[in-house]
Amino acid sequence: MSIETKSSSHVASEDAILQCLATYFPQNQDEIRMGRGDDCALFHVEHSMAVSTDMFLENIHFRTSYFTPADIGYKALAVNLSDLAACGAKPLAFTLCLGIPEHIDLPWLHQFFGGMADLANTYNVNLVGGDLSRSPTIHISITVFGETTGVSCFLTRGGSMPGDTIFVIGQLGLARVGLDLLEHQGRAAMESWPMACAAHLRPNPHCNAGLVLGRVAFNTRPPALMDISDGLVRDLPRLLGLSGELGLANGEGSSLGAELTLTEEQIHPEVLRWSAAHNINPYHTMMVGGEDYALLGACAPDLMPSLEAAIPEITTIGTITQKGYITCNETPFSTQDGFDHFAKSAQNTASLNHHNL
Amino acid sequence: MSIETKSSSHVASEDAILQCLATYFPQNQDEIRMGRGDDCALFHVEHSMAVSTDMFLENIHFRTSYFTPADIGYKALAVNLSDLAACGAKPLAFTLCLGIPEHIDLPWLHQFFGGMADLANTYNVNLVGGDLSRSPTIHISITVFGETTGVSCFLTRGGSMPGDTIFVIGQLGLARVGLDLLEHQGRAAMESWPMACAAHLRPNPHCNAGLVLGRVAFNTRPPALMDISDGLVRDLPRLLGLSGELGLANGEGSSLGAELTLTEEQIHPEVLRWSAAHNINPYHTMMVGGEDYALLGACAPDLMPSLEAAIPEITTIGTITQKGYITCNETPFSTQDGFDHFAKSAQNTASLNHHNL
Repeated sequence: MSIETKSSSHVASEDAILQCLATYFPQNQDEIRMGRGDDCALFHVEHSMAVSTDMFLENIHFRTSYFTPADIGYKALAVNLSDLAACGAKPLAFTLCLGIPEHIDLPWLHQFFGGMADLANTYNVNLVGGDLSRSPTIHISITVFGETTGVSCFLTRGGSMPGDTIFVIGQLGLARVGLDLLEHQGRAAMESWPMACAAHLRPNPHCNAGLVLGRVAFNTRPPALMDISDGLVRDLPRLLGLSGELGLANGEGSSLGAELTLTEEQIHPEVLRWSAAHNINPYHTMMVGGEDYALLGACAPDLMPSLEAAIPEITTIGTITQKGYITCNETPFSTQDGFDHFAKSAQNTASLNHHNL
Repeated sequence: MSIETKSSSHVASEDAILQCLATYFPQNQDEIRMGRGDDCALFHVEHSMAVSTDMFLENIHFRTSYFTPADIGYKALAVNLSDLAACGAKPLAFTLCLGIPEHIDLPWLHQFFGGMADLANTYNVNLVGGDLSRSPTIHISITVFGETTGVSCFLTRGGSMPGDTIFVIGQLGLARVGLDLLEHQGRAAMESWPMACAAHLRPNPHCNAGLVLGRVAFNTRPPALMDISDGLVRDLPRLLGLSGELGLANGEGSSLGAELTLTEEQIHPEVLRWSAAHNINPYHTMMVGGEDYALLGACAPDLMPSLEAAIPEITTIGTITQKGYITCNETPFSTQDGFDHFAKSAQNTASLNHHNL
């Protein structure tokens, strides 16, 4: 029942949308007892179920001027799967809330569902329910469900100890460079900056690496793990249990800290090139860039050899300390203006637009 | 990371919002191993988990001109809990995606979370995660989780047989009357039409009745059950397995039908009064009204005495037939223009704005 009373001129009927959706999203997981089409979906998971939810909103998280419909569908699911990866959970299913403006037509939806299905099918993650609505701009909310298996751990952000090795899986700063280029040049930027643009348009959720981390840790102290959505400079304090900027370069009491040792080889060539062109310290680009969806973790040093064998792209970036602040290449790293987009006095040019509860 | 680059003038910081939220939503369920604050929440449920998701959008599903912030918070959760009720599942937890415009301040959020917490605490349903974002209008997406216990059934829409008794739990048409009055008179309508306005502003999810239905059915053929969100005339065909309007008053083949027998005593006095004032057949008001969030079900006739004993508000409204169409008081009931708000040619004045997958 709607509070709107004028005629709709929507270009696709509900039935047509549901048929379109059904062609892209089969339901074939054993754990799903009841999928789409009833009031609830029903799961049975033998061990425990991990749940996460993220929004993906037009003009807040993406622009249609340089995101194709397929990119939008892909990334909306990718940012959610990244949360499962960050807990070492195996992706299982998701629900989709989709608000679409009147100008969206069936060909658009085919591309959108197609892009989302590309990623869903990669991980055999089933669409088990959702909600469709008209809305003024494109609105996507996804909730993902994953399971921890009998031989793996659910990995949290906590539990690091002084002396632990800090590692990253994935590129840092590259997506932020891509955002800047796409904002200024549109999709033309893809020709000279293919990896940066791809990092922003289609981030890769590190689900398989997350699963390996969960399994490797089964009989030992598990790694602390999270995904980097707000940039290393914002997310590392969360891994350390520091309260945002407060703990940076200003040690207080007994909280954990970090000594980062970054080398130029760890910086992506496009990040180096972009930083040089803008006269910005490339380490700075690397640390403040948001939406990397890389995994950030810490574990006992003696666990690293087996992790490096199982996850070739893992990179050591530093060590946990008990100093209560963060240094980068022996220099205390002072925070930038935060990403907190709800703050009255936010001044920076790259504010985060979502905050996970 | 945001694509917006201008300064934010948001009146509440993220930290203040999170503190506000924490005061209203404790996390105290045994089944929740990890709640808010990490990348995922973690559940352990011994039997099976029911999941549903619904959006609640400003100017689509509600208006701030007559919904208080507390009403918005309450109803956003209520429409989701109603889906759990419709499956006989016990409410356990929920996640919240909240998009808020810049003008929303902390006092507004206190009322919003307070209204939501009123209902959450009634059913001891825990907020286990979510996502906050700026957005142009108020956007709420909620995903709810429920469990089926060892001595109850997960109830679906299917399984009705000819001869089954059709029943309703809750009022029909009252919320639609409330919507009309609130649209025309604002909250002043509450004085003369308190029940109709309340039915629209704060619908009651029939969770306890849903649980009773699941338990009563444990050792017998379970009732078919769903909640009525689009009006009886749209939702009854779904219970019968008819494809929307197609099956109405136009019997084809072997599909199920229904003979409804409605009496004036079953019509709420405010529905009768409103229908008389608008010269509308009150049975019509009762059948087409949306957002009732009543439960609609069907079961073997010999199950009704025990259901009536356990659920005093249950009402018999008819019998399942094998005629493939629906009659109301012996008259074939022809459908109204549907609620399908995506259809190009939608002409009616009350179009539904969401469609569950």
